Amino acid sequence: MLTRRSFFKQTGLGVAATVTPALLAGAAANFAFTGNANAAGNGAATGGAGSGSGALVPAQIVGAKGVADSFRLGAAGYTFVHFKLEKTLEMLRRVDVHYLCIKDFHLPLNSAPEQIEAFHARCAAAGVTGYAVGPIYVDSEKKLRANFEYAKRVGVKLLVGVPCEIGPNKKRRASAKLVKLAGKLVADYDIRYAIHNHGPDMPELFPNAESGIELIGDADPRLGLCLDIGHELRDGRDPVAAVLKYAPRIHDIHIKNVTAASKAGRGIELPRGKIDFPAFVRALRKVGYTGVCSLEYEKDMKDPLLGIAESIGYFRGVMDATR
Amino acid sequence: MLTRRSFFKQTGLGVAATVTPALLAGAAANFAFTGNANAAGNGAATGGAGSGSGALVPAQIVGAKGVADSFRLGAAGYTFVHFKLEKTLEMLRRVDVHYLCIKDFHLPLNSAPEQIEAFHARCAAAGVTGYAVGPIYVDSEKKLRANFEYAKRVGVKLLVGVPCEIGPNKKRRASAKLVKLAGKLVADYDIRYAIHNHGPDMPELFPNAESGIELIGDADPRLGLCLDIGHELRDGRDPVAAVLKYAPRIHDIHIKNVTAASKAGRGIELPRGKIDFPAFVRALRKVGYTGVCSLEYEKDMKDPLLGIAESIGYFRGVMDATR
Repeated sequence: MLTRRSFFKQTGLGVAATVTPALLAGAAANFAFTGNANAAGNGAATGGAGSGSGALVPAQIVGAKGVADSFRLGAAGYTFVHFKLEKTLEMLRRVDVHYLCIKDFHLPLNSAPEQIEAFHARCAAAGVTGYAVGPIYVDSEKKLRANFEYAKRVGVKLLVGVPCEIGPNKKRRASAKLVKLAGKLVADYDIRYAIHNHGPDMPELFPNAESGIELIGDADPRLGLCLDIGHELRDGRDPVAAVLKYAPRIHDIHIKNVTAASKAGRGIELPRGKIDFPAFVRALRKVGYTGVCSLEYEKDMKDPLLGIAESIGYFRGVMDATR
Repeated sequence: MLTRRSFFKQTGLGVAATVTPALLAGAAANFAFTGNANAAGNGAATGGAGSGSGALVPAQIVGAKGVADSFRLGAAGYTFVHFKLEKTLEMLRRVDVHYLCIKDFHLPLNSAPEQIEAFHARCAAAGVTGYAVGPIYVDSEKKLRANFEYAKRVGVKLLVGVPCEIGPNKKRRASAKLVKLAGKLVADYDIRYAIHNHGPDMPELFPNAESGIELIGDADPRLGLCLDIGHELRDGRDPVAAVLKYAPRIHDIHIKNVTAASKAGRGIELPRGKIDFPAFVRALRKVGYTGVCSLEYEKDMKDPLLGIAESIGYFRGVMDATR
């Protein structure tokens, strides 16, 4: 049996000390019984990322050749905005996905420790690890500090957020002051903070990766981006170029596809949109990305499972064929 | 508007003269409005396989780089054994698949011309082309001739079948006599005949591709195989090697994945089984396969759509990343 410490180390997910060992042992055991037949067949032979006996390689990141990837496939909580946690976990189970970026509608910001423990227990029973929280919009220093406290209580080492303030035009805009504070809090808490880009809909509120990088400047490396590749393209930018250019600052990625490289672009199944996923995944491999690629599926959001399945399948196909 | 002749030429599907031009014009028009955004965006620039103005490239075979493949992604009718045609077509629409190998439970062998015309009309309305018929088990010369007549009436140029007879042990076995006759009928009708392999469950009835090739010998090149890659692996053979070795005889392919390379292997979603799809698709590209890869999904057959979506997405991902 894996110890909790080795589980963290081998998965690289850095779930922190709030979570009980029993819960995580449960999650670890689930990994051994879920996932694809290749993983089951080849895991012992390859040893995976952890190497040696008892190495834990989540099933879905071991491809046809039994080679483990440096990055993982997951799901962004927002995909399930219309569904409670149990239904969300059931959908993740059906598409064999094991990582979830936790949204506050599944685990409120003011959750008590026992609520958090129960949340993790439910995820563990489904073989799912909540690897991060967010995105959380935040418009004051007090709230930003509270976000870090929340991430700490939840036991994750990654917080996705949108630090904002109200501009003279009454619209939300990026807050340089909060970004600067986040650069300090990442060190105080040893929790990474990833600014999420939102495309041309909110042109003053991190429309693209570059706008985040500009405010981040030379801050602590734990301050970085959650690169939303769909919004990046909708803002007329190249997501592949963003991966290559900003790699050391990319702490999380939302994968999706869109119908057009403009504000008019809308969410669509991964195989059917404008983003060149083979080039994108090759870029992830080139820079050695070690985070999660979380599907944020925003089409048919009240009946998303079919599109999620097609999209997850597609991404896995691209992963397998580029390994 | 494309003429019927140019539609056939450009799609390479060779639907024959029984089908009315109006129906096929409808199918052609559907292709222009379905499928992925890449295809819509890049079709004009690339010109596709047909080149020049008005070239018709079915959406799903144009990848992220706007390059058309020599082969197509489709579905084997057996996948929908528990569903009537309308529900089948609805499922194909939802996963953006446009080619169907027709099973007799959707279009009976004794269908009258008006039934066949109505069948094609319903398919065309869904943007689907029935590109072949079968697999059809056949155990007499009379029935084999009737199969060719059926294919002719349906208007397809490809017939998938299993020519068999009853052996001394009362079990069905491959019929050398019917294979020989098929080798003549392919010339008489100019309709290709593809022998379907069925794995270790029926060890005397084409358990693998090689057993088909042996009986085919040096027959007319229109006599060949429908390579079922799942059954091939379940019989302990390498589907990739089969593609490379028997390419000129492979007229159709059933894609699927299985949990084990043995008789115990069962159907599973494409990303989760034992077959190395990147290697398989690279082999198809190497030999220049020009047929259809039809998903025959045999898991959860009474509720298959989710697994179909994941599988179709996966195959598209592998196609896009190996182009």
